[in-house]
Amino acid sequence: MRALVGRIYGCVDKSDPRPLVPLASGDPTPFGCFRTAPAAEEAVTAAVASGQHNGYPSATGVTEACSAVARYLSQYLPYELSTGDVVLTAGCNHGIEIMMAPGANVLLPRPGYPLYEARASLSRLEFQHYNLLPEKGWEVDIQGVEALANANTVAMVVVNPNNPSGAVYSYQHLAKIAETARKLGIMVISDEVYEHFVFGSKPFVPMGVFGEIAPVVTLGGISKRWMVPGWKLGWIALTDPMGILRRKKVSPCLVNIRHACALLFHLIYSMYLMIFKELISQIYRNVMNVMRETAEICYQKLKDIEGITCPHKPEGSMFVMVKLEMPCFDGIYDDINFCCNLAKEESVVISPGSGLGMKNWLRITFAVDPLLLEDGLERLKTFCLRHGNKSIMNQAS
Amino acid sequence: MRALVGRIYGCVDKSDPRPLVPLASGDPTPFGCFRTAPAAEEAVTAAVASGQHNGYPSATGVTEACSAVARYLSQYLPYELSTGDVVLTAGCNHGIEIMMAPGANVLLPRPGYPLYEARASLSRLEFQHYNLLPEKGWEVDIQGVEALANANTVAMVVVNPNNPSGAVYSYQHLAKIAETARKLGIMVISDEVYEHFVFGSKPFVPMGVFGEIAPVVTLGGISKRWMVPGWKLGWIALTDPMGILRRKKVSPCLVNIRHACALLFHLIYSMYLMIFKELISQIYRNVMNVMRETAEICYQKLKDIEGITCPHKPEGSMFVMVKLEMPCFDGIYDDINFCCNLAKEESVVISPGSGLGMKNWLRITFAVDPLLLEDGLERLKTFCLRHGNKSIMNQAS
Repeated sequence: MRALVGRIYGCVDKSDPRPLVPLASGDPTPFGCFRTAPAAEEAVTAAVASGQHNGYPSATGVTEACSAVARYLSQYLPYELSTGDVVLTAGCNHGIEIMMAPGANVLLPRPGYPLYEARASLSRLEFQHYNLLPEKGWEVDIQGVEALANANTVAMVVVNPNNPSGAVYSYQHLAKIAETARKLGIMVISDEVYEHFVFGSKPFVPMGVFGEIAPVVTLGGISKRWMVPGWKLGWIALTDPMGILRRKKVSPCLVNIRHACALLFHLIYSMYLMIFKELISQIYRNVMNVMRETAEICYQKLKDIEGITCPHKPEGSMFVMVKLEMPCFDGIYDDINFCCNLAKEESVVISPGSGLGMKNWLRITFAVDPLLLEDGLERLKTFCLRHGNKSIMNQAS
Repeated sequence: MRALVGRIYGCVDKSDPRPLVPLASGDPTPFGCFRTAPAAEEAVTAAVASGQHNGYPSATGVTEACSAVARYLSQYLPYELSTGDVVLTAGCNHGIEIMMAPGANVLLPRPGYPLYEARASLSRLEFQHYNLLPEKGWEVDIQGVEALANANTVAMVVVNPNNPSGAVYSYQHLAKIAETARKLGIMVISDEVYEHFVFGSKPFVPMGVFGEIAPVVTLGGISKRWMVPGWKLGWIALTDPMGILRRKKVSPCLVNIRHACALLFHLIYSMYLMIFKELISQIYRNVMNVMRETAEICYQKLKDIEGITCPHKPEGSMFVMVKLEMPCFDGIYDDINFCCNLAKEESVVISPGSGLGMKNWLRITFAVDPLLLEDGLERLKTFCLRHGNKSIMNQAS
């Protein structure tokens, strides 16, 4: 995916005087409206200036940070997590690396987040894809999951709020996923890096709420909610009140991996303590308001473009998936070709769905400044008109 | 090892009014005499305050940082490294994690650094131990390496300057290692986290100097030389001028793993650029002078203790290995028992050799304040006298 997006960037015409509109990767931080709280930045500065964070973190420091994460997550669960249920990671990606360990079979969503496949391949972990169903609001294809699972299957990965579709799963759907996991005797690896990053009608429900039905390993981090993806503060939490993972030796293995902590920039331990304070959560509410606005702009503008179908309005995360109706276009043969030409002619960069196993789809982010987003989507519309298949267009009008 | 040292810490008598002397892990940062340059700390503070480092690093930022590392390492090599030869890591430990990948067999030194075994086990990598020879200044047992290697062996790990022994390998010995690797058709994974951290008669020679003889993957970082182990800035460098690793697909695999960078706290990219500047290297020279002094204190004091033998004066790294002559002690049955009792009676914490596969040896760090070090070694001497085997002592006197 990274290489593919790099290729699309390479198509941009550098002589175009218009600003480039980056709608490929979800990084809202360059935009003033999405900047994190000054208090968060000040806490890091103070930690560095103290000179107390140049060495290895103390065992106490690590425990306090784990405990801060356990308290934070427990607010949203019907039971209490303990310090021992938490492993700190260098961002959520690091959690994915750790969980994609060798020797078993896991079920991954399609469309999904390509790092899962990349890490699974690197560590020779077997994986298969189950589908998300666009016509059902990108819900998990439960029957498909049941059909794919075999004796070696140990886990299914669920991403909620969902990247790349923007879907937020309902309480009922998550309960159904948990029941399926119980039936299959597997755990759920719940990627909640977009936890609480919702702005539609459905609230965010942590998968851990259903931990009594099936064991859940929750992956998370502060990247999204706090608008600091470059800070790399993440966690793995065992939301497993029945102790199944402990009995099956998954927890001891994760605790052994605690030296994962050894990869963390020491000064961020103090940030785990600081970051969950009330004063920071203000920034989150402001940001969600802007994100609701940009998701709305995105959906409305896309609805208006001939040749592009958006099956589901985004309610969470920073992305939406749209389908290219290929017969509507002249001289464009697939999603990659579409994105290359769009970048070249309009300086708008969008991810081709092919990078996510979804040929002739696009993944668009709305985590950009509202005015720039409108500008970019206008250019996308102009592009689609210019390349529209004349005979189909005439029929339609 | 970590758990073992934790256990020793647990033995310390909290009512002892004397300061605890931590001679187990090598973290010099709590001591004023080893503090890093203010310029380094100021660079981090400025990077945070700019607000430019909350998001994902740009491709350009990553390339510039890799290029800074390539230039830094090339100063000490007979050929130039390119940006593509460098992968940035979250400290040297992260480099070890990446290199201890599944599916082959590697040869590890004994005594060594326990993370190698831990990571190899986790990723189901086969490993065997070759010996370092105390009677030969802890040089690699070349004949032992040749005897152990089999058809599946792909690499041998060499740690130079050596942790835990404090040895620094000569040009001639490193050349011999390279010749052995060529003969066996394997690469050398050269752990140089203590690069330039030498204060004896031998200069530090990077293994990459012999890259034309056998391919070398160099693991390094700024932790030691710049006294900031908690900052987690490391690298993997392919010091492979003959392109053997490229032909054998090791380099493409490492480049795929470039997203390892995704684990790095974004603001540290600017630090890779800043850290190699001349103004920082001043701190290194001052620190080496103090380290030479503490290594000397350590060696002289240890020589004077009945029941402890130090086969080789440390010339690099932050550690020295000493042997316990067990018959010299009454009522102490092994190195772990020795360390537990020492912690309890004298509030001095030392690592038992057992954690490194060296039963009845001790690993002692001299990376502590000189006065505290003298105090700790005096207490060690008192302890040894108190527990000395009376009959042997009387024979000796």
